[in-house]
Amino acid sequence: MIAQQYKEMLGGKSVIRQLSEFATERGKEIGYENVFDYSLGNPSVPAPKEFTDSLINLLQNEDPMTLHGYSQSLGIPEVREAVAESLNKRFGMHYKKEHIFMTSAAAGAIAHAIRCITVPGDEILTFAPYFPEYNPYINLSGAKLKIVPANTEDFQINFEQFEKMLTDKVMAVLINTPNNPSGVVYSTETMEKLAGLLKQKSEEYGHDIYLISDEPYREIVFEGVDAPFVSKFYDNTIMCYSFSKSLSLPGERIGYLAVNPACKDAELIVNMCGQISRGIGHNCPSSLMQLGVVDVLDKTSDISVYETNMNILYKELVNLGFTCVKPGGTFYIFPKALEDDAIAFCEKAKKYDLILVPADSFGCPGYFRMAYCIDTEKVERSIAAFRKFVETEYRK
Amino acid sequence: MIAQQYKEMLGGKSVIRQLSEFATERGKEIGYENVFDYSLGNPSVPAPKEFTDSLINLLQNEDPMTLHGYSQSLGIPEVREAVAESLNKRFGMHYKKEHIFMTSAAAGAIAHAIRCITVPGDEILTFAPYFPEYNPYINLSGAKLKIVPANTEDFQINFEQFEKMLTDKVMAVLINTPNNPSGVVYSTETMEKLAGLLKQKSEEYGHDIYLISDEPYREIVFEGVDAPFVSKFYDNTIMCYSFSKSLSLPGERIGYLAVNPACKDAELIVNMCGQISRGIGHNCPSSLMQLGVVDVLDKTSDISVYETNMNILYKELVNLGFTCVKPGGTFYIFPKALEDDAIAFCEKAKKYDLILVPADSFGCPGYFRMAYCIDTEKVERSIAAFRKFVETEYRK
Repeated sequence: MIAQQYKEMLGGKSVIRQLSEFATERGKEIGYENVFDYSLGNPSVPAPKEFTDSLINLLQNEDPMTLHGYSQSLGIPEVREAVAESLNKRFGMHYKKEHIFMTSAAAGAIAHAIRCITVPGDEILTFAPYFPEYNPYINLSGAKLKIVPANTEDFQINFEQFEKMLTDKVMAVLINTPNNPSGVVYSTETMEKLAGLLKQKSEEYGHDIYLISDEPYREIVFEGVDAPFVSKFYDNTIMCYSFSKSLSLPGERIGYLAVNPACKDAELIVNMCGQISRGIGHNCPSSLMQLGVVDVLDKTSDISVYETNMNILYKELVNLGFTCVKPGGTFYIFPKALEDDAIAFCEKAKKYDLILVPADSFGCPGYFRMAYCIDTEKVERSIAAFRKFVETEYRK
Repeated sequence: MIAQQYKEMLGGKSVIRQLSEFATERGKEIGYENVFDYSLGNPSVPAPKEFTDSLINLLQNEDPMTLHGYSQSLGIPEVREAVAESLNKRFGMHYKKEHIFMTSAAAGAIAHAIRCITVPGDEILTFAPYFPEYNPYINLSGAKLKIVPANTEDFQINFEQFEKMLTDKVMAVLINTPNNPSGVVYSTETMEKLAGLLKQKSEEYGHDIYLISDEPYREIVFEGVDAPFVSKFYDNTIMCYSFSKSLSLPGERIGYLAVNPACKDAELIVNMCGQISRGIGHNCPSSLMQLGVVDVLDKTSDISVYETNMNILYKELVNLGFTCVKPGGTFYIFPKALEDDAIAFCEKAKKYDLILVPADSFGCPGYFRMAYCIDTEKVERSIAAFRKFVETEYRK
């Protein structure tokens, strides 16, 4: 008997995917170089050469049986150890390998984390604007995702709304900083206030509230931005990391979950992740990929292009009259549309070969997302199209 | 709140893992070469050189952004196409890429398949002796695994018991041929009888009964053995394949699910798998691994050592008085213990540095499994230990 739950999901094709496919099709007509495709968050710079060299070296010099052999279900011990050491060195933490679980990128980490610390019916809060894939990660576990409305002034947290929604039913709060889609980084002040409230409410309700921190963009932070390390603020933090963005490896599905050593039941949570993996038949990420990232844990791709692109776009969009919070990191920018209906706005933009994503599915209607992980030269050429779009459609 | 369901699983450490760890510890005392470790089904021959060359070639010559970029959630289209073509050519089938879903090995394929075609509470039947990891794959989905008792005469199917248990509640039947742990391959006669019964009962009950065929050992079949291609017998077959054993890549977690083109809702099932993957945050296997296997779809590691080892062991075990069905494939052999309690038998064997796995957790008490994916030289040396064990403990 076909499971209706999954069958019904098939209707809901992601807006981002639809726009990306439109861009590809349009590219066949006018040349893809002429489509200003800001749809997909796919890194536009290659993986560091050190990573490629590391894989080739392993393939040429390691015993294939060790290299491709079964990994322990929590990950290869030496890899977990190296991840812990890298985090300790860079962020002054005290992780041991027992706090690290190797995952199929941040998606895998989040899906495991929520299964560890919630049971069906529990609530998880996140903040708009938010990454829409949180819906399947969470809803298919049986927990319920609830969205705290955005603070559109600066895209920090809307604490007034948050406090109202942080009821006894909430077992976890999921944050994403630097944020997809806003590009905003939560400040030290925001983190202190968030941690304070979680501590207060945990005590009040007599149960732990876990903080799940989705950090695939942690390494992509722009000059002068206050980007505190989330796990330092709150003991019960489970960090979900991915190498997809920092090392430009989205297809390799490699990342990790790191439970704060001070977290209640920290090692138990890591061990439980191994059991959850058994149930979904995943077991562990590719052993070659696990070993391959060890040499580049403290490195990134040449991500400077993202800041260059952001500075161009931010300046030009503001000049064109857009309301826009300046991104502190990621490769996204999140302006307000020039009419209330962002879907209509983005539809009109297509006529100018500008592929923009309306933010309705990010829980923030009236805004749109641009993923500027594209060549700077194309960003520069897109400005004229933007000007024409705005002048023709909104300054008639 | 910690999810008790997963916490409780932590107590149940696998017998195989415990024995494997014992073997490693014992190896530290007397040298691992002196421990006759028949515990783990870990391939003992390296991946084919063509596979290593294929990966190095991709890393040296492909654009890293293509190579490591997002794969579609069903798998890279060219890879799915190549898998379909390889199956068609080798087994006279008519798969298209739309019938193939790339997975995290056979475990991932099984976990996806059962979520597609059952809802919580449905029953799935499998046959003893069976791979104990089926329990977490199935039970954590909410479906219920029920075990049809073994036909210990030849380890084909016990049809009398099967027919009794094949009630209206059963939505799927899970088979594994060549079989872990028995080493037996289901004959054409068995497959015809199985398919006939499934067709008859599907009609009688007015709902489809799916056949899930777990085939990681499909390529490891010994000379002269009748090893029919399962999907040819029954339309509603979902094949779960892994490259772990045939290419010696267990740590890379790469395999696929292939839905019989004649299966009801075949393409729907594949598309649903993509949605299930979203929910567990897995998404797809490593893009490099997907691309890497394309060049070696029709190849295997040099697996001849397994047949050599089987022939030695079968002959010697029979000589020593063991009751044993001759394996037709895999790298397992499954003799009857020399006392009713196989756990006690295997415990005694440890004194002779023979690491044997009692089959109680395989649903077949009184038997034990030997995984002879080890060097032939060690198999030969183990015979003397076996003789001493039997003579000392059972012929006093």
